[in-house]
Amino acid sequence: MTQADLIVEPGSHEIIMSRIFNAPRELVFKVMTDPQHIPQWWGPKIYTTVVDKMEVKAGGLWRYIQKGKDGNEFAFHGVYHSIEAPERVVDTFEFEGMPGHVLMETMTLEALPDGKTKVTVSSVFQSVADRDGMLQSGMADGSNESYDRLDEILATL
Amino acid sequence: MTQADLIVEPGSHEIIMSRIFNAPRELVFKVMTDPQHIPQWWGPKIYTTVVDKMEVKAGGLWRYIQKGKDGNEFAFHGVYHSIEAPERVVDTFEFEGMPGHVLMETMTLEALPDGKTKVTVSSVFQSVADRDGMLQSGMADGSNESYDRLDEILATL
Repeated sequence: MTQADLIVEPGSHEIIMSRIFNAPRELVFKVMTDPQHIPQWWGPKIYTTVVDKMEVKAGGLWRYIQKGKDGNEFAFHGVYHSIEAPERVVDTFEFEGMPGHVLMETMTLEALPDGKTKVTVSSVFQSVADRDGMLQSGMADGSNESYDRLDEILATL
Repeated sequence: MTQADLIVEPGSHEIIMSRIFNAPRELVFKVMTDPQHIPQWWGPKIYTTVVDKMEVKAGGLWRYIQKGKDGNEFAFHGVYHSIEAPERVVDTFEFEGMPGHVLMETMTLEALPDGKTKVTVSSVFQSVADRDGMLQSGMADGSNESYDRLDEILATL
Protein backbone atom coordinates (compact mmCIF):
# COMPACT_ATOMS: atom_id res chain seq x y z
CA MET A 1 0.00 0.00 0.00
CA THR A 2 1.06 3.60 -0.55
CA GLN A 3 2.37 5.55 2.41
CA ALA A 4 1.46 9.16 3.05
CA ASP A 5 4.31 11.65 3.07
CA LEU A 6 4.79 13.05 6.53
CA ILE A 7 6.51 16.31 7.44
CA VAL A 8 7.27 16.66 11.14
CA GLU A 9 9.83 19.28 12.08
CA PRO A 10 11.34 19.02 15.56
CA GLY A 11 9.87 21.54 18.01
CA SER A 12 7.05 22.55 15.65
CA HIS A 13 3.30 22.77 16.36
CA GLU A 14 2.54 21.22 12.97
CA ILE A 15 2.17 17.88 11.21
CA ILE A 16 1.78 17.83 7.43
CA MET A 17 0.57 14.64 5.72
CA SER A 18 0.08 14.27 2.00
CA ARG A 19 -1.01 11.42 -0.20
CA ILE A 20 -1.92 10.93 -3.83
CA PHE A 21 -5.20 9.22 -4.75
CA ASN A 22 -5.95 7.68 -8.11
CA ALA A 23 -9.24 9.58 -8.62
CA PRO A 24 -10.25 13.07 -9.75
CA ARG A 25 -10.48 15.90 -7.22
CA GLU A 26 -14.27 16.34 -7.34
CA LEU A 27 -14.79 12.67 -6.52
CA VAL A 28 -12.21 12.61 -3.72
CA PHE A 29 -13.73 15.74 -2.17
CA LYS A 30 -17.25 14.36 -2.49
CA VAL A 31 -16.40 11.05 -0.84
CA MET A 32 -14.38 12.66 1.98
CA THR A 33 -17.18 15.08 2.89
CA ASP A 34 -20.09 12.65 2.59
CA PRO A 35 -21.45 11.27 5.91
CA GLN A 36 -22.60 8.12 4.08
CA HIS A 37 -19.01 7.26 3.17
CA ILE A 38 -17.26 8.09 6.47
CA PRO A 39 -18.02 4.69 8.09
CA GLN A 40 -16.42 2.98 5.09
CA TRP A 41 -12.97 4.51 5.46
CA TRP A 42 -12.48 6.78 8.50
CA GLY A 43 -10.29 5.16 11.15
CA PRO A 44 -8.88 1.64 11.52
CA LYS A 45 -10.85 -1.32 10.14
CA ILE A 46 -11.09 -2.97 13.56
CA TYR A 47 -13.53 -0.25 14.68
CA THR A 48 -17.03 0.49 13.50
CA THR A 49 -17.36 4.22 12.90
CA VAL A 50 -20.70 5.95 13.37
CA VAL A 51 -21.33 9.52 12.23
CA ASP A 52 -23.16 11.21 15.09
CA LYS A 53 -23.10 14.69 13.46
CA MET A 54 -21.71 16.00 10.19
CA GLU A 55 -23.01 19.36 8.99
CA VAL A 56 -20.65 20.17 6.13
CA LYS A 57 -20.79 24.00 6.23
CA ALA A 58 -19.08 26.86 8.05
CA GLY A 59 -20.07 26.52 11.70
CA GLY A 60 -21.27 22.97 11.19
CA LEU A 61 -20.50 20.43 13.90
CA TRP A 62 -19.04 17.00 13.23
CA ARG A 63 -18.77 14.08 15.64
CA TYR A 64 -17.71 10.49 14.93
CA ILE A 65 -17.86 7.56 17.33
CA GLN A 66 -15.58 4.54 16.94
CA LYS A 67 -16.80 1.33 18.53
CA GLY A 68 -14.61 -1.68 19.17
CA LYS A 69 -15.75 -5.31 19.34
CA ASP A 70 -14.92 -5.21 23.06
CA GLY A 71 -17.53 -2.49 23.56
CA ASN A 72 -14.98 0.31 23.93
CA GLU A 73 -15.96 3.63 22.36
CA PHE A 74 -13.82 6.57 21.25
CA ALA A 75 -15.38 9.81 20.08
CA PHE A 76 -13.99 12.75 18.13
CA HIS A 77 -15.61 16.07 17.32
CA GLY A 78 -15.01 19.54 15.94
CA VAL A 79 -16.44 22.38 13.88
CA TYR A 80 -15.96 23.41 10.27
CA HIS A 81 -14.45 26.86 9.80
CA SER A 82 -14.80 26.78 6.00
CA ILE A 83 -15.76 24.43 3.19
CA GLU A 84 -14.54 25.34 -0.30
CA ALA A 85 -15.57 22.50 -2.60
CA PRO A 86 -13.67 20.79 -4.16
CA GLU A 87 -10.39 22.18 -2.89
CA ARG A 88 -10.20 23.03 0.80
CA VAL A 89 -11.66 22.36 4.24
CA VAL A 90 -10.57 24.05 7.48
CA ASP A 91 -11.88 22.53 10.69
CA THR A 92 -11.09 21.82 14.33
CA PHE A 93 -10.54 18.38 15.85
CA GLU A 94 -10.77 17.14 19.44
CA PHE A 95 -10.39 13.58 20.72
CA GLU A 96 -12.86 13.28 23.58
CA GLY A 97 -10.45 11.01 25.44
CA MET A 98 -8.23 14.08 25.89
CA PRO A 99 -10.79 16.82 26.39
CA GLY A 100 -9.65 20.39 25.85
CA HIS A 101 -6.83 19.45 23.49
CA VAL A 102 -7.86 20.87 20.14
CA LEU A 103 -6.09 21.08 16.82
CA MET A 104 -6.90 22.88 13.59
CA GLU A 105 -6.75 20.99 10.30
CA THR A 106 -6.40 22.50 6.83
CA MET A 107 -7.10 19.95 4.12
CA THR A 108 -6.15 20.92 0.56
CA LEU A 109 -7.01 18.92 -2.57
CA GLU A 110 -4.86 19.52 -5.61
CA ALA A 111 -5.85 18.20 -9.05
CA LEU A 112 -2.91 16.47 -10.77
CA PRO A 113 -2.68 16.30 -14.59
CA ASP A 114 -3.36 12.57 -14.92
CA GLY A 115 -6.71 12.52 -13.13
CA LYS A 116 -5.12 11.94 -9.75
CA THR A 117 -5.49 14.09 -6.64
CA LYS A 118 -3.00 15.13 -4.00
CA VAL A 119 -4.55 15.53 -0.58
CA THR A 120 -2.52 17.47 1.99
CA VAL A 121 -3.61 17.83 5.59
CA SER A 122 -1.81 20.31 7.83
CA SER A 123 -2.62 19.99 11.53
CA VAL A 124 -1.57 22.69 13.98
CA PHE A 125 -1.79 21.86 17.66
CA GLN A 126 -2.17 24.10 20.72
CA SER A 127 1.34 23.09 21.82
CA VAL A 128 4.39 21.20 20.61
CA ALA A 129 3.75 18.69 23.42
CA ASP A 130 0.25 18.02 22.06
CA ARG A 131 1.71 17.54 18.59
CA ASP A 132 4.34 15.10 19.89
CA GLY A 133 1.68 13.22 21.88
CA MET A 134 -0.42 12.75 18.75
CA LEU A 135 2.58 11.36 16.87
CA GLN A 136 3.31 8.92 19.69
CA SER A 137 -0.31 7.73 19.64
CA GLY A 138 0.30 6.23 16.20
CA MET A 139 -1.64 8.88 14.27
CA ALA A 140 0.43 8.34 11.13
CA ASP A 141 -0.34 4.60 10.97
CA GLY A 142 -4.01 5.31 11.62
CA SER A 143 -4.14 7.84 8.81
CA ASN A 144 -2.39 5.49 6.40
CA GLU A 145 -4.92 2.78 7.14
CA SER A 146 -7.79 5.23 6.62
CA TYR A 147 -6.27 6.39 3.34
CA ASP A 148 -5.80 2.78 2.17
CA ARG A 149 -9.49 2.20 2.81
CA LEU A 150 -10.39 5.41 0.99
CA ASP A 151 -8.25 4.24 -1.96
CA GLU A 152 -10.29 1.04 -2.13
CA ILE A 153 -13.62 2.88 -2.10
CA LEU A 154 -12.50 5.37 -4.76
CA ALA A 155 -11.53 2.44 -7.01
CA THR A 156 -15.12 1.16 -6.93
CA LEU A 157 -16.79 4.50 -7.78
CA MET B 1 -1.39 51.74 30.55
CA THR B 2 -0.55 48.12 31.28
CA GLN B 3 1.09 46.10 28.53
CA ALA B 4 0.18 42.53 27.77
CA ASP B 5 2.95 39.98 28.15
CA LEU B 6 3.87 38.54 24.80
CA ILE B 7 5.61 35.23 24.12
CA VAL B 8 6.88 34.84 20.57
CA GLU B 9 9.48 32.14 20.00
CA PRO B 10 11.46 32.34 16.77
CA GLY B 11 10.27 29.88 14.13
CA SER B 12 7.12 28.95 16.07
CA HIS B 13 3.50 28.83 14.83
CA GLU B 14 2.30 30.41 18.08
CA ILE B 15 1.79 33.76 19.77
CA ILE B 16 0.87 33.85 23.46
CA MET B 17 -0.47 37.07 24.98
CA SER B 18 -1.47 37.45 28.60
CA ARG B 19 -2.79 40.33 30.63
CA ILE B 20 -4.20 40.86 34.10
CA PHE B 21 -7.53 42.65 34.53
CA ASN B 22 -8.72 44.22 37.76
CA ALA B 23 -12.09 42.43 37.78
CA PRO B 24 -13.35 38.97 38.75
CA ARG B 25 -13.29 36.15 36.21
CA GLU B 26 -17.07 35.81 35.79
CA LEU B 27 -17.36 39.50 34.91
CA VAL B 28 -14.41 39.48 32.50
CA PHE B 29 -15.77 36.39 30.76
CA LYS B 30 -19.28 37.88 30.55
CA VAL B 31 -18.10 41.15 29.05
CA MET B 32 -15.73 39.49 26.55
CA THR B 33 -18.44 37.15 25.24
CA ASP B 34 -21.29 39.67 25.13
CA PRO B 35 -22.12 41.08 21.67
CA GLN B 36 -23.44 44.26 23.32
CA HIS B 37 -19.98 45.02 24.73
CA ILE B 38 -17.82 44.14 21.70
CA PRO B 39 -18.23 47.55 19.98
CA GLN B 40 -17.02 49.23 23.21
CA TRP B 41 -13.60 47.58 23.33
CA TRP B 42 -12.76 45.30 20.37
CA GLY B 43 -10.16 46.85 18.07
CA PRO B 44 -8.62 50.31 17.90
CA LYS B 45 -10.68 53.33 19.00
CA ILE B 46 -10.37 55.00 15.57
CA TYR B 47 -12.70 52.34 14.13
CA THR B 48 -16.36 51.72 14.78
CA THR B 49 -16.88 48.01 15.33
CA VAL B 50 -20.16 46.37 14.39
CA VAL B 51 -21.06 42.81 15.42
CA ASP B 52 -22.53 41.18 12.33
CA LYS B 53 -22.82 37.71 13.94
CA MET B 54 -21.92 36.36 17.38
CA GLU B 55 -23.47 33.05 18.38
CA VAL B 56 -21.58 32.16 21.54
CA LYS B 57 -21.83 28.34 21.42
CA ALA B 58 -19.95 25.42 19.85
CA GLY B 59 -20.39 25.79 16.10
CA GLY B 60 -21.56 29.38 16.44
CA LEU B 61 -20.33 31.88 13.88
CA TRP B 62 -18.87 35.28 14.75
CA ARG B 63 -18.18 38.18 12.40
CA TYR B 64 -17.13 41.74 13.26
CA ILE B 65 -16.85 44.67 10.86
CA GLN B 66 -14.56 47.62 11.59
CA LYS B 67 -15.44 50.85 9.85
CA GLY B 68 -13.07 53.79 9.51
CA LYS B 69 -14.07 57.46 9.20
CA ASP B 70 -12.74 57.33 5.63
CA GLY B 71 -15.32 54.68 4.77
CA ASN B 72 -12.85 51.79 4.75
CA GLU B 73 -14.12 48.53 6.17
CA PHE B 74 -12.27 45.53 7.56
CA ALA B 75 -14.07 42.35 8.50
CA PHE B 76 -13.07 39.36 10.62
CA HIS B 77 -14.87 36.10 11.19
CA GLY B 78 -14.59 32.63 12.63
CA VAL B 79 -16.37 29.82 14.46
CA TYR B 80 -16.44 28.78 18.09
CA HIS B 81 -15.11 25.29 18.77
CA SER B 82 -15.99 25.39 22.48
CA ILE B 83 -17.28 27.77 25.13
CA GLU B 84 -16.60 26.82 28.76
CA ALA B 85 -17.85 29.69 30.90
CA PRO B 86 -16.15 31.34 32.71
CA GLU B 87 -12.77 29.85 31.93
CA ARG B 88 -12.08 28.99 28.30
CA VAL B 89 -13.02 29.70 24.70
CA VAL B 90 -11.52 27.98 21.63
CA ASP B 91 -12.32 29.55 18.27
CA THR B 92 -11.00 30.22 14.79
CA PHE B 93 -10.14 33.64 13.37
CA GLU B 94 -9.82 34.88 9.78
CA PHE B 95 -9.15 38.42 8.57
CA GLU B 96 -11.18 38.79 5.38
CA GLY B 97 -8.45 41.00 3.88
CA MET B 98 -6.29 37.85 3.76
CA PRO B 99 -8.83 35.18 2.88
CA GLY B 100 -7.90 31.58 3.58
CA HIS B 101 -5.40 32.44 6.33
CA VAL B 102 -6.95 31.06 9.49
CA LEU B 103 -5.68 30.82 13.04
CA MET B 104 -7.00 29.04 16.11
CA GLU B 105 -7.26 30.93 19.40
CA THR B 106 -7.44 29.42 22.87
CA MET B 107 -8.45 31.99 25.48
CA THR B 108 -8.05 30.98 29.11
CA LEU B 109 -9.29 33.02 32.10
CA GLU B 110 -7.61 32.35 35.42
CA ALA B 111 -9.04 33.72 38.67
CA LEU B 112 -6.33 35.36 40.80
CA PRO B 113 -6.64 35.51 44.62
CA ASP B 114 -7.26 39.27 44.86
CA GLY B 115 -10.32 39.42 42.59
CA LYS B 116 -8.23 39.93 39.48
CA THR B 117 -8.21 37.81 36.35
CA LYS B 118 -5.41 36.69 34.10
CA VAL B 119 -6.46 36.33 30.49
CA THR B 120 -4.15 34.32 28.23
CA VAL B 121 -4.73 34.00 24.51
CA SER B 122 -2.70 31.46 22.55
CA SER B 123 -2.97 31.80 18.77
CA VAL B 124 -1.66 29.07 16.49
CA PHE B 125 -1.32 29.90 12.81
CA GLN B 126 -1.33 27.67 9.72
CA SER B 127 2.33 28.56 9.15
CA VAL B 128 5.23 30.37 10.78
CA ALA B 129 5.08 32.89 7.91
CA ASP B 130 1.45 33.67 8.77
CA ARG B 131 2.41 34.12 12.42
CA ASP B 132 5.25 36.46 11.51
CA GLY B 133 2.97 38.42 9.17
CA MET B 134 0.45 38.96 11.97
CA LEU B 135 3.20 40.26 14.26
CA GLN B 136 4.39 42.68 11.58
CA SER B 137 0.82 43.97 11.10
CA GLY B 138 0.98 45.45 14.60
CA MET B 139 -1.26 42.86 16.22
CA ALA B 140 0.35 43.35 19.64
CA ASP B 141 -0.33 47.12 19.68
CA GLY B 142 -3.89 46.51 18.51
CA SER B 143 -4.48 43.98 21.26
CA ASN B 144 -3.03 46.29 23.89
CA GLU B 145 -5.36 49.08 22.81
CA SER B 146 -8.34 46.70 22.90
CA TYR B 147 -7.35 45.51 26.37
CA ASP B 148 -6.93 49.11 27.59
CA ARG B 149 -10.49 49.80 26.44
CA LEU B 150 -11.73 46.61 28.10
CA ASP B 151 -10.00 47.72 31.34
CA GLU B 152 -11.95 50.98 31.23
CA ILE B 153 -15.30 49.23 30.72
CA LEU B 154 -14.64 46.71 33.50
CA ALA B 155 -13.93 49.63 35.89
CA THR B 156 -17.43 51.00 35.28
CA LEU B 157 -19.29 47.71 35.87
